Amino acid sequence: MSKLSKYSPLLDGQSIESKRQEIQEYFHNTYELYERVFEVLKDDDVFYKKSEITRHPMIFYFGHTATFFINKLINMKIINERINPNFESIFAVGVDEMSWDDMDNARYNWPKVKDVREYRTKVKLLVDKLIMTLPLSLPINENSPMWIILMGIEHERIHIETSLVLHRQMPIELIKDSVHFNLCSKSSVAPKNEMLEINSAEIKLGVDKNHKLYGWDNEYGVYEERVSVFKASKYLVSNGEFMEFVTSDGYKNEEYWDEEGRNFLKISKAEYPTFWILKDGVYKYRSLSSEMDMPLDWPVDVNALEAEAFCRYKSLQDGVTYQLPSEAEYRAIYDEVKIEDIPSFHESSANLNFYHYGSSSPVNEFSFITQNGKAIYDVVGNVWQWSRTPIRAFEGFEVHEAYDDFSVPTFDEKHALILGSSWASSGNLITKYSRYAFRKHFYQNAGFRYVITEQKEENLSDIYESDELVSQYCEFQYGDTHFGVENFAVSTARVASSFVKNKDKALDLGCATGRATYELAREFEEVEGIDFSVRFVQVGAKLKDDGYVAFSVKEEGEISQNKKITIDELGYESLKSKVSFWQGDACNLKPNFKGYDLIMATNLIDRLYNPRLFLDTIDERLNEDGVLVITSPYTWQESSTNKEFWLGGYEDEKGESVKTIDSLIEVLADKFELIHTQDLDFVIQETARKFQHTISEVSVWKKR
Amino acid sequence: MSKLSKYSPLLDGQSIESKRQEIQEYFHNTYELYERVFEVLKDDDVFYKKSEITRHPMIFYFGHTATFFINKLINMKIINERINPNFESIFAVGVDEMSWDDMDNARYNWPKVKDVREYRTKVKLLVDKLIMTLPLSLPINENSPMWIILMGIEHERIHIETSLVLHRQMPIELIKDSVHFNLCSKSSVAPKNEMLEINSAEIKLGVDKNHKLYGWDNEYGVYEERVSVFKASKYLVSNGEFMEFVTSDGYKNEEYWDEEGRNFLKISKAEYPTFWILKDGVYKYRSLSSEMDMPLDWPVDVNALEAEAFCRYKSLQDGVTYQLPSEAEYRAIYDEVKIEDIPSFHESSANLNFYHYGSSSPVNEFSFITQNGKAIYDVVGNVWQWSRTPIRAFEGFEVHEAYDDFSVPTFDEKHALILGSSWASSGNLITKYSRYAFRKHFYQNAGFRYVITEQKEENLSDIYESDELVSQYCEFQYGDTHFGVENFAVSTARVASSFVKNKDKALDLGCATGRATYELAREFEEVEGIDFSVRFVQVGAKLKDDGYVAFSVKEEGEISQNKKITIDELGYESLKSKVSFWQGDACNLKPNFKGYDLIMATNLIDRLYNPRLFLDTIDERLNEDGVLVITSPYTWQESSTNKEFWLGGYEDEKGESVKTIDSLIEVLADKFELIHTQDLDFVIQETARKFQHTISEVSVWKKR
Repeated sequence: MSKLSKYSPLLDGQSIESKRQEIQEYFHNTYELYERVFEVLKDDDVFYKKSEITRHPMIFYFGHTATFFINKLINMKIINERINPNFESIFAVGVDEMSWDDMDNARYNWPKVKDVREYRTKVKLLVDKLIMTLPLSLPINENSPMWIILMGIEHERIHIETSLVLHRQMPIELIKDSVHFNLCSKSSVAPKNEMLEINSAEIKLGVDKNHKLYGWDNEYGVYEERVSVFKASKYLVSNGEFMEFVTSDGYKNEEYWDEEGRNFLKISKAEYPTFWILKDGVYKYRSLSSEMDMPLDWPVDVNALEAEAFCRYKSLQDGVTYQLPSEAEYRAIYDEVKIEDIPSFHESSANLNFYHYGSSSPVNEFSFITQNGKAIYDVVGNVWQWSRTPIRAFEGFEVHEAYDDFSVPTFDEKHALILGSSWASSGNLITKYSRYAFRKHFYQNAGFRYVITEQKEENLSDIYESDELVSQYCEFQYGDTHFGVENFAVSTARVASSFVKNKDKALDLGCATGRATYELAREFEEVEGIDFSVRFVQVGAKLKDDGYVAFSVKEEGEISQNKKITIDELGYESLKSKVSFWQGDACNLKPNFKGYDLIMATNLIDRLYNPRLFLDTIDERLNEDGVLVITSPYTWQESSTNKEFWLGGYEDEKGESVKTIDSLIEVLADKFELIHTQDLDFVIQETARKFQHTISEVSVWKKR
Repeated sequence: MSKLSKYSPLLDGQSIESKRQEIQEYFHNTYELYERVFEVLKDDDVFYKKSEITRHPMIFYFGHTATFFINKLINMKIINERINPNFESIFAVGVDEMSWDDMDNARYNWPKVKDVREYRTKVKLLVDKLIMTLPLSLPINENSPMWIILMGIEHERIHIETSLVLHRQMPIELIKDSVHFNLCSKSSVAPKNEMLEINSAEIKLGVDKNHKLYGWDNEYGVYEERVSVFKASKYLVSNGEFMEFVTSDGYKNEEYWDEEGRNFLKISKAEYPTFWILKDGVYKYRSLSSEMDMPLDWPVDVNALEAEAFCRYKSLQDGVTYQLPSEAEYRAIYDEVKIEDIPSFHESSANLNFYHYGSSSPVNEFSFITQNGKAIYDVVGNVWQWSRTPIRAFEGFEVHEAYDDFSVPTFDEKHALILGSSWASSGNLITKYSRYAFRKHFYQNAGFRYVITEQKEENLSDIYESDELVSQYCEFQYGDTHFGVENFAVSTARVASSFVKNKDKALDLGCATGRATYELAREFEEVEGIDFSVRFVQVGAKLKDDGYVAFSVKEEGEISQNKKITIDELGYESLKSKVSFWQGDACNLKPNFKGYDLIMATNLIDRLYNPRLFLDTIDERLNEDGVLVITSPYTWQESSTNKEFWLGGYEDEKGESVKTIDSLIEVLADKFELIHTQDLDFVIQETARKFQHTISEVSVWKKR
């Protein structure tokens, strides 16, 4: 076993106590490894530098993985108390450059590295305690509280890999050598690539819920595809092989690039791979912590757009069509060479899990043998391999409620799968069934191999929302009305606006798919829509970015009807510049969300894990004369809110019924005057014949 | 371990394979023991005799436990095919004398014993196969498919005990001796009873869901009670002790009996305990298979009414109030003598699990030692001990969906708990947390001990429905209307009736809480209401028997409002003689349900496990010119109906949408003419502010 990195624990076992031990050891190993990754930053000042202009500084990532544990544990109601609400808000979101993540760093006062280190220690102690005390039966499954611990650990494993990429993108003078990530010392000329035949196969992707390793939600389900005989390159494309493309002006010739690729070229001004350095007419190579002579036989690190451009170039050269492999073709190679999954796989047989190197290695070092007895290299490990397949949900996909924005936002046909893992991969990343996908312009420790195949990936046009709950909300907010009840987003926005004098800035809190955010923009100069779930937020953002929302409405059983609503039909084209959408937790909002004339909290309070946290400080975010509008049917349920945090719907010690509206008056009385209440109906369609008809109470509170 | 009877298996363990083995051995042991119980019947003819006029003949019980496995497995969609639909319908219900069980034996052609034996063998082979192949992880919990197997086994364990009671009630000449159930040979004069002090204690009843033994749904939950110091009789009341009461004309003096007791005396004409025989002025004793001299030191077998009468008699004699113990007081005795639960409890220390005897035994044979070092006898075993506590749900009670009428119908304040188990008890019956309750006039292998206590059991008046779903339906059928939508039971009954010429007899299939059954009785001479769930059927039956239904309507969170609707308010007093309520499975209705002019299937077809089974033969139950009315919103869901059995709401092989109404036309076309369709709305209230608003389609089909 690698000294640096342990394998993920199995979910089953015979002894509860030894399973707790094993999980604790894995947790400690992960936590320590993560800290080693940050030891390569030369000093604490570097934590405040960004490796890419569009990303947060490194201090964000350093804090992020620890706050993740706490945010998920709170969210799943496994713990009730935060360790540091400020950290757990500012370090919560902004990992990738999604439109709903707030990346404006000017808004933040980043904390001291020392304080974040102390925070990490507190989280470690808490997680340690939970590992030893949480209810546990074997096998662990996705409903076990321990699953959330494993999720936190595997999440940190991902950031071990991605932080190493960010560090590699840092100016070299900010990075120091680490004994833990030792560079491969072998390098030579690039071997000449050749094509190997891979047998046809019936491929089954997707894993069963009873699988014995932790998995992210996108791994589960069923997908079958017949892969015909195809050819795959023997080696990953090496720096040497890629050099031809660069020196043949590959980055300048637009015919090798598709629209997205040309766009990337325009913005990035790239002329060669990002980890190459051109010095005095010679290409050097940037590893994690050094600039070195070009290792021609190591794999080239590129993004998907560069890999695709290379394939187009090579196709024109050879008169044969080269492509990136599909997800199923990659599995066919994997199966062909009979790789065994973790834990049977021995880590010495590939460049992964930090066993051999803290860098890439020659593309002809780690071989795997095909059915015909031919050697193919780096089927797993060394660098990830871009595929031509956009990540999609398998049949039977279910969102894991603890992390509902892990996968769903990537099911947009714009995130391509990367396959096979890299030298910096460990944990879930090196397992057979894991599935990671990135936007095509993103850098990872990723390169590619090419294939000659007859199968083409179909291109989908409009993306219809596959998420049933989100679709239901799309129909609720953008679809038909029923039983003569007005569209609720429209009516609440109108009612709420009517009580506000100054109409500069409004907050639509619990904005769901965003309709009321747009409606408020009819009256307000600026409207921010916030929802806890990215699954919902991205609908409003898509309407703004792509000009439409598309969803399917359930009619009877599994029959549903696709619907598409455009921004023109809605009349929002002129409003879209006023609205923005953000992910956020109403019980722990980031400090920068403030200065509102209206805060509208729609059907939100009875879904919060601790509604008092929201009510206690919401006045601070309102301007003078600001108005808070709360609408709710007060449908308290333990699945959303532990009973101790309900604002109403229970009996007090004297046995008297406590109603929510009375608690609201009590809690808000000091800071607000209740100026209006009314009922407002809404109807949510479940099928063509089944509806929820709810009577929400609107209460309007004027700041004192 | 007893040669006859094994202990119930633990739900946890280390090895799946050995757990399967263990369950199989337990299953075989139970199955075999059950057959031994029927070997005491002299010959096959006796299977067609009844031991009590109100009960089915023994052939029913012989078939019942095997069909239970199949009916539950079908119901839970673990298997799809029946072994013998006729057996699985006629042996399905009628265990107790509930008003909704059809006990009219003239209606049945009971099958041959040989055929039932063969049927049992087929069931055994199937269950064996399932035990070895069902998905299994440890610990087994109530959601595991294996739970249903354990349920079937424990259900048969109950019938082992109750069938032995029935056999003991058979004429002696119909029963033969069995080597397996050997009579205790000890008997002497009755020991003089005395009172022992039991310490005060904080009693916690109710067991956790993680408990390591199979439990029935009524065992789970939380109930706490402080029990003050009290006194309990050292011995169970013996035949000798009870003799005083009998010879003092206890059965003739009405002041010892409450109203229910006097009623029992009137109907039964009892003058002494049922297992006593008066011959030539001398009381003899009936054991399972013999009539013997009165064993004065054995416990008397009585029902609860007789036990209570004895207490009143003795109170008047001694000037002290004697009562039956409460459930909590019994547990205080149990805890006081530190009994360990199965499997730690050694069966040799009490008369249970068939270890010592096939009969009762002297009340001074099996001692348990109190904290003060005093001996108290038969805390468990020998005979059950009647309590004064009506069985109630503990806080947190949840119906187990596979057997939703196991407990709920007994939560009527009329079923008293029996405690401690008997010589004929095994399996779940001898575990610490099990809870069995019977109507007070019922006989079991049950006697009693008395206590002197200051605690009195409160008497509840109206029983408000504690079952949330049933309450919701009560409000739906008997409560307020909303959004201007007419009461659905009233509107469907009116619409359905309007298409029928001859109005002799109607069937309300899926009658739920029975409102439409009464409404149809405005037009029809006779109306039968059938529902799959006794939880629902008993509401309509209660309205008929007790003149009211009482339920609670959820308002906000846990706050709800009690409502009571009387038969007078509804104007049904004059109709009630026309209606009757039955439990039944629409997919496998008993043959006697036929001869209808109208069959109304309300919101039923999309909740059946196999709706075609219903549709294929329903015409046979209609008279000429009869009308079938189907109403449904076609809300197909896999939790009710496996997808392969959906009538619509899916795409066929050609990728075309199949709508339910089209399938209905196709399936029914040969036998029915579709004469009318219309939409009919209904609204179900969930809370004061939340409603389901559904549009049902009514289709009217005239028999060709």
